[in-house]
Amino acid sequence: MLVIKIGGGEGNALEPLIEDIARSWGGRPWVLVHGGSQRVGEVSTALGRPPRFVTSPSGYTSRRTDRQTALTFAMVCAGDVNKRIVESLQRRGVNALGLSGLDGRLLTARRKKAIRVKENGRTTVLRDDYTGTIDGVNADLLRGLIAGGFLPVVSPPALSEEGEMVNVDGDRAAAAIARALGAESLVLLTGADGLYRRAGDPSTRVGRLARADLAEAGRSWAEGRMRIKLKAAEEALDGGVGRVWIGASHRENPLTGVMSGQGTVIS
Amino acid sequence: MLVIKIGGGEGNALEPLIEDIARSWGGRPWVLVHGGSQRVGEVSTALGRPPRFVTSPSGYTSRRTDRQTALTFAMVCAGDVNKRIVESLQRRGVNALGLSGLDGRLLTARRKKAIRVKENGRTTVLRDDYTGTIDGVNADLLRGLIAGGFLPVVSPPALSEEGEMVNVDGDRAAAAIARALGAESLVLLTGADGLYRRAGDPSTRVGRLARADLAEAGRSWAEGRMRIKLKAAEEALDGGVGRVWIGASHRENPLTGVMSGQGTVIS
Repeated sequence: MLVIKIGGGEGNALEPLIEDIARSWGGRPWVLVHGGSQRVGEVSTALGRPPRFVTSPSGYTSRRTDRQTALTFAMVCAGDVNKRIVESLQRRGVNALGLSGLDGRLLTARRKKAIRVKENGRTTVLRDDYTGTIDGVNADLLRGLIAGGFLPVVSPPALSEEGEMVNVDGDRAAAAIARALGAESLVLLTGADGLYRRAGDPSTRVGRLARADLAEAGRSWAEGRMRIKLKAAEEALDGGVGRVWIGASHRENPLTGVMSGQGTVIS
Repeated sequence: MLVIKIGGGEGNALEPLIEDIARSWGGRPWVLVHGGSQRVGEVSTALGRPPRFVTSPSGYTSRRTDRQTALTFAMVCAGDVNKRIVESLQRRGVNALGLSGLDGRLLTARRKKAIRVKENGRTTVLRDDYTGTIDGVNADLLRGLIAGGFLPVVSPPALSEEGEMVNVDGDRAAAAIARALGAESLVLLTGADGLYRRAGDPSTRVGRLARADLAEAGRSWAEGRMRIKLKAAEEALDGGVGRVWIGASHRENPLTGVMSGQGTVIS
């Protein structure tokens, strides 16, 4: 079992992965997970509501998600990005089937009822935010679809206990799915060729990171989005996933490439 | 087996149906099909591309669907309308699962490679239109989900033979699904209390229409969208569906209401 996450932010490309999957899938038990942050930003801006971001006191940046943003996020991730991916895979003979976390309670989440954010040096509390942390995966649903010959293509949002759509992090969603399915491998494809010791400097790429050094890397030298990827990697490995690969989505054969050493492997 | 279609045009309401399903579903083998034309129009307009419509030489009106329109249509139907419905049903305890026609090749269609349209009295031919007619339903996929305890919530677009997303009519999609599943009943919920002998005049509602009179009704006195509903009804009955109910979506208990005589039944 293999879970692949493709980023939706700037610097990511979808087509190379789709080509790679079309060549290498062959009906194997894989799940593709995706986000869509760049497209969400484009559509929100075109609709007159440019995205806003907030930073937690511990330094994580996330999308400010009021109800309207949650609806736009669902529309773009589950309706635009997801259906473009499914169409593109189907055109190449891959029997892709797209689902959001809402569908059949595929991803359930604890909504953060109050989030603390840092703004101009002050910490304030937001209570109308629709973000959350995944606390359940409907693994039976995925297993049933895989057994039926489908390649599930999964996107946020998730469903809260109160039945509200909530934005969840795509990397951590992929990790939760990999755990729930007992996957051997999780591949996180992103805008960089893996984990760099110095952000933005590919010559400092770490080819292999030991599980034991993961927490230290996240704490001391990884930056920005990569910190969340390391957190996702940690959650996956803690849950029994064998190894986590991180590499670039815009290279040719990104999936087979990263799994043959062109990125960072954590195990 | 029961297939319910809820209209997405003006005059339709979603909430009464969702309440009715939440009260009456109880895990039974139902499929909900929806469109989203009004929402597609709103979002397209907000994105600076107001919808355009074309009329065929025989008088049917349909959405002009170039590639960009097809993408917006998929985003809004499968991502906005579909996920709002799924969220709303899940909040009420119904294990809804949303799919577009692309997903797992649920709905396949013959794309119309050239469509003839009438404009200012002249007939012209469009070759870049992404509309089509359904020629296949993945009934096994729906049966599997139903057996798994889910209520499938299905929306266009469908997938063409060439693997392109194509807009298909929602009523006829519902009819094709009802045929493929061997459904006893198809319920088409819309902005009117059934079929009227004089368009817009509820006092002329036809409570019961015999199968034998369907073609004549479509030809001689039904108008606009109702002609397509009658065509869908005909396709369903021809395919072995027991009866077709047509009624209003905005009434309280629209589903149970129309099935107890508050609309038009065709059999």
